[in-house]
Amino acid sequence: MAACELCQGPGGEVVWQDALCRVVRVEAADYPGFCRVIWNSHVGEMTDLPSADRRHLMTLVFAVEAAVRSLLRPDKVNLASLGNMVPHLHWHVIPRRRDDRHFPQPIWGEALRAASAALPEVSSQALHDAIVQALSEEHGGAG
Amino acid sequence: MAACELCQGPGGEVVWQDALCRVVRVEAADYPGFCRVIWNSHVGEMTDLPSADRRHLMTLVFAVEAAVRSLLRPDKVNLASLGNMVPHLHWHVIPRRRDDRHFPQPIWGEALRAASAALPEVSSQALHDAIVQALSEEHGGAG
Repeated sequence: MAACELCQGPGGEVVWQDALCRVVRVEAADYPGFCRVIWNSHVGEMTDLPSADRRHLMTLVFAVEAAVRSLLRPDKVNLASLGNMVPHLHWHVIPRRRDDRHFPQPIWGEALRAASAALPEVSSQALHDAIVQALSEEHGGAG
Repeated sequence: MAACELCQGPGGEVVWQDALCRVVRVEAADYPGFCRVIWNSHVGEMTDLPSADRRHLMTLVFAVEAAVRSLLRPDKVNLASLGNMVPHLHWHVIPRRRDDRHFPQPIWGEALRAASAALPEVSSQALHDAIVQALSEEHGGAG
């Protein structure tokens, strides 16, 4: 696995991390708030992880979803763990808007239109704070 | 929500269900074993569900992943909750093969090649049994 880019580097600007996983911003100017949640060790599939680790990772994925919803009020959130190109477990958390380049298609195909001229902005600090807030609500919540 | 197709019908042949969610086979001849895990009530996002329900749904998603891995030995599994077209919570569980029509791209874009002439087959009964087996290992496991 010498060539795995998610073993060799963070895979983006880290906005939150613990000992097991990290959340990075994706450099996708047309998709503000697009984050990836990356498991730190080299694992291919969710079912390669023990259940407790799966739960830990999904808690983060849903905290990031809650964070981008609170910050960006997207029309939809897309969650995906694909890993066909980089088979190192990572989740895409993608806030979608009805006027984004691919809606209602997934973002990986051909664009249907130009990006809106007035995209929302979100800072790394705001993402960090909203993730911390979502985690604290999750851990303190009735859920 | 009168027009929601996942409220009005099962959305495919049901291979497993309980009171909260169901697993259906997707009619995609080129992707044997492709299943969807559908939350029964009309909810848009994972973070609209209470944590216990999220865990319940993800336990099913991972049981289906384990089932298709055991039955089909795919090169990769893709998991995705998009809902841009049908905003009723459902997960795609897609066994991928290096020689499938879109690999390493997601299955939603243009095909890169013709489907293999020798695709594996999997019956609904085999899917059902493998899901039951995966759930029983999960609930009895050390996790």
